[in-house]
Amino acid sequence: MVYSYNELYNFSKEIFSKIGCNETNAQTAAKALLSADLRGIDSHGVARLSGYVRLWEAKRINPCTESSIIHETISTAVVDGNEGLGLVNAPFAMKIAIEKASIAGTGWVSVQNSSHFGIAGYHAMLALPHDMIGIAMTNGSALVAPTFSSEKLLGTNPIAVAIPAGKENPFVADFATTTASNGKLEIMQRQKKPIPSGWVQTKDGKTSNNAHELKEGGALLPLGGDREHGSHKGYMLGSIADIFSGIFSGANYGPWVPPFPAYVPMPEGMPGKGIGHFFGAMKIDAFRPAQDFKDNMDNWIRRFKNAKTIEGYGPVIIPGEPESAMEIDRMNKGIPLLQPVMDDLMETGKKFSIEFRVEAIV
Amino acid sequence: MVYSYNELYNFSKEIFSKIGCNETNAQTAAKALLSADLRGIDSHGVARLSGYVRLWEAKRINPCTESSIIHETISTAVVDGNEGLGLVNAPFAMKIAIEKASIAGTGWVSVQNSSHFGIAGYHAMLALPHDMIGIAMTNGSALVAPTFSSEKLLGTNPIAVAIPAGKENPFVADFATTTASNGKLEIMQRQKKPIPSGWVQTKDGKTSNNAHELKEGGALLPLGGDREHGSHKGYMLGSIADIFSGIFSGANYGPWVPPFPAYVPMPEGMPGKGIGHFFGAMKIDAFRPAQDFKDNMDNWIRRFKNAKTIEGYGPVIIPGEPESAMEIDRMNKGIPLLQPVMDDLMETGKKFSIEFRVEAIV
Repeated sequence: MVYSYNELYNFSKEIFSKIGCNETNAQTAAKALLSADLRGIDSHGVARLSGYVRLWEAKRINPCTESSIIHETISTAVVDGNEGLGLVNAPFAMKIAIEKASIAGTGWVSVQNSSHFGIAGYHAMLALPHDMIGIAMTNGSALVAPTFSSEKLLGTNPIAVAIPAGKENPFVADFATTTASNGKLEIMQRQKKPIPSGWVQTKDGKTSNNAHELKEGGALLPLGGDREHGSHKGYMLGSIADIFSGIFSGANYGPWVPPFPAYVPMPEGMPGKGIGHFFGAMKIDAFRPAQDFKDNMDNWIRRFKNAKTIEGYGPVIIPGEPESAMEIDRMNKGIPLLQPVMDDLMETGKKFSIEFRVEAIV
Repeated sequence: MVYSYNELYNFSKEIFSKIGCNETNAQTAAKALLSADLRGIDSHGVARLSGYVRLWEAKRINPCTESSIIHETISTAVVDGNEGLGLVNAPFAMKIAIEKASIAGTGWVSVQNSSHFGIAGYHAMLALPHDMIGIAMTNGSALVAPTFSSEKLLGTNPIAVAIPAGKENPFVADFATTTASNGKLEIMQRQKKPIPSGWVQTKDGKTSNNAHELKEGGALLPLGGDREHGSHKGYMLGSIADIFSGIFSGANYGPWVPPFPAYVPMPEGMPGKGIGHFFGAMKIDAFRPAQDFKDNMDNWIRRFKNAKTIEGYGPVIIPGEPESAMEIDRMNKGIPLLQPVMDDLMETGKKFSIEFRVEAIV
């Protein structure tokens, strides 16, 4: 079943209003949330709307408050997210990064006391219309075991980098620092299929092909999977995103990052405030004339797109290109939702006497 | 056989003087080069000294010239490396990044027209004594096939991030964006062992366990190894390092980056100048009081170090810690060199009538 973007946007916006966002912030949050559905990252879109509501019900977030700058220099700032929505705090911080970059060449903003910010790529892409490179990362609750560890100490800690091009689509990398994302695990669970080795380990750290391993105390593995295949590099990447997001801001870090599901107990002895994010904006012409840069990017993209491919595979994919195409397609033709997601949205609407009157368009 | 750091340093410095460096630059280059031997990255240390000499003989580098700033803003600069040594250009650029960070909070410097800069970690670590996070990356000649490609389009493009701690050693990540580095392949070649799947592919893009595959037209694989294990993420990381280093600076990029071995023909139709690098420095107290940050880092490091480990493995390694320990050990007890490396150094000395009078200390 396929639903219109505008209807889903308006519904989400109303829900965000009901949990305390003012009109502007409700719009900001709905737009950020829906960007995941548009770009095909279905696990991070409206499927999570009820999760934000449950965090509010559990008094773990407070979307009535406004975020504010608590420290700044000419190229940096630290934002206190005031227990609000990451979906609002992240665009707020990214706007500051962009303003600083327009003056100082680059802008870098860490955020403390925040919550789940949706997809990293959306925030990084906010820099693109300003002829800037955008960078976004966040930490998250511990689901990932560092190399050799049987304990979960890191989140899936995604990193996104958006780079403007000229005639070609921008280059948009957006990836969890694990071999496979939680969303991919869920797909395999639904298909009742075993998962490849290198995605998860058991609670004792043994190799596993069980898509349900996380529910049994197991852990996701850092990009690389095992030491022999470079899992220490994925562990380093996840750690960098954790430290930039959590320690540069005064948020929590490592195993102390608060969970997204409201039923999961909060970590004990938290050393900081909420979840942390980190954002950057780099103005192209602080380095080179933007047109020269974009011409080079077009050349780069075309060379890679036209690479000779392995028989039976290809073409080489430019990061962000499939998502850009899907965004256009879903904006025009609608967003497909699974029945359990629609049921969940209807339940969420009922809590606030908002009728889920979104009609399927296919 | 083990040799003293000071003797190897002086020998390398003399060689760099002979190929055109002034005294200061020869010292800078020798120190950067030897840092690889000290930290146990033997493939990038004095074993490469003769390679730099051969680049000079082939007139591909010109260490007589000085690098200079060709564009700057308050937090950014672009450096023209003037065909000089990356080993000199990189510390020059890093110094600018640090100076900018001390004024603007952060400093970001791209470098064009450069050559191999040794290990990325050394340059990133230059920020640490200033209570700054240091970042260093470079592109390199194409040895890596993007996901689905049978062509080599990216270098091993390493990324280094050095983060200060308090009482603990700093966190220093320094990794090629491939599953395995070329250095690791060489070790397996010497041991005449097959290599794990996911490290290289044949020239047609087929899985291979042949440690000599690169010499037969094959390619290194991006971190992840194959699509199922996230090789598209390694490909994205390598691309980001390539674009930041090459396109932000006006250097070459992708398949057009000049090779290190002087006998390999230069790429045709190069769109830029030399090799590119990218550096960053972020002043801790542009975000938070440095002491608070360092206390959190100590807490982070201790929690990870003391994680429960998988039976038969462990402990969890803090990035940079084994290298720091080795640095102290080799500085005191000397640097082990293989006979072929020593023979190569003697040959190189003879070219300039410098006697390789370095005596083994063990």
